[in-house]
Amino acid sequence: MKKTIITISREFGSGGHEIGRILAKKLGLELYDRDLIDKAAEKIVAMPKEVLKKADEKKHNPWLHQVWYDVPNQELNGMTANDTLHQAYSSIIRELAGKENCVFVGRCADYVLRDRSDVLNVYIHADMEDRKERAVHSYEVDERDIEGSIKKIDKRRANYYEYYTDRKWGRAENYDISINSSTFGIDGTVEIIKMLAQKKAL
Amino acid sequence: MKKTIITISREFGSGGHEIGRILAKKLGLELYDRDLIDKAAEKIVAMPKEVLKKADEKKHNPWLHQVWYDVPNQELNGMTANDTLHQAYSSIIRELAGKENCVFVGRCADYVLRDRSDVLNVYIHADMEDRKERAVHSYEVDERDIEGSIKKIDKRRANYYEYYTDRKWGRAENYDISINSSTFGIDGTVEIIKMLAQKKAL
Repeated sequence: MKKTIITISREFGSGGHEIGRILAKKLGLELYDRDLIDKAAEKIVAMPKEVLKKADEKKHNPWLHQVWYDVPNQELNGMTANDTLHQAYSSIIRELAGKENCVFVGRCADYVLRDRSDVLNVYIHADMEDRKERAVHSYEVDERDIEGSIKKIDKRRANYYEYYTDRKWGRAENYDISINSSTFGIDGTVEIIKMLAQKKAL
Repeated sequence: MKKTIITISREFGSGGHEIGRILAKKLGLELYDRDLIDKAAEKIVAMPKEVLKKADEKKHNPWLHQVWYDVPNQELNGMTANDTLHQAYSSIIRELAGKENCVFVGRCADYVLRDRSDVLNVYIHADMEDRKERAVHSYEVDERDIEGSIKKIDKRRANYYEYYTDRKWGRAENYDISINSSTFGIDGTVEIIKMLAQKKAL
């Protein structure tokens, strides 16, 4: 089996993160998800980690943190926290992909690694009923309007992806494979991706 | 294995039709594609088949054929050839799905059969270079501008799909699975769908 890197993009509540976690474990690979922020924080010493956390997977927002104003720093001059974080993520993702097989969840990894041929790009979506059931446990969701919250978070992810890439989020053409996790279940979806990663790597 | 119906939607030049053909043969199922027009023509006796052919997989177009004007007919009153054909396709597709396992290519079959749980909805796309290579043999393509022709035909299919459904064409969420045939090859893609059809039917 050749070197294989897997990127997972996912609708909110689709189980995409869970799928990435089980997949990485089954394949014996490292999983990189929201914890990438720790590596990013090491690179962006000029910016408090709390600010970076607020900027995670969000598009350019000049109101969140005017770096040039709060933290005078030559390197970050004029860049928002979002831009700085995205730049750090891109360089970290490229670095990691250059030295090990691994699974990335989110953070535009499919786009960042678009020039590599050893990457399997996966998109996970699911039926709204299943997403609602899963989302209810998230602190990001307003339980009085679960579907509205899900759509809002999807919209935020789409804005983020579309700001930092030249692609439309959720369009099949961006990915090698897109899977409805409601059709095949979490474990079934993991098995499919595992099989395809091995197939692609032949 | 439970009853299984497969619908294939496809980008122009993605090999989707070829994939449907091989898949149907391997599974021993009937393939329904552009030949559905023969069945439609039997239903729409008031309209010449040549007109129906022009309307195939195209959205509502009042200029193509004003039925109420050329062919005074109570049943077709006020409907364009496109609308009449789409209505006939929908009823034929539902009828066929009700009595046999089969593979449908195009014609909004995924949407028409959206209330059935025994349908595997597949979308096939491919890298532009492969699509160009495949498209060059089509009579629909202007060889001086192959990429332009491909995009135009995609646009037409998108218009058709979006006119007769409430969905966006090419969005992953419409399908159980979307596959890049450039990643896995035609035969590889057939194998994946075959395996998933059997998986879904368990």
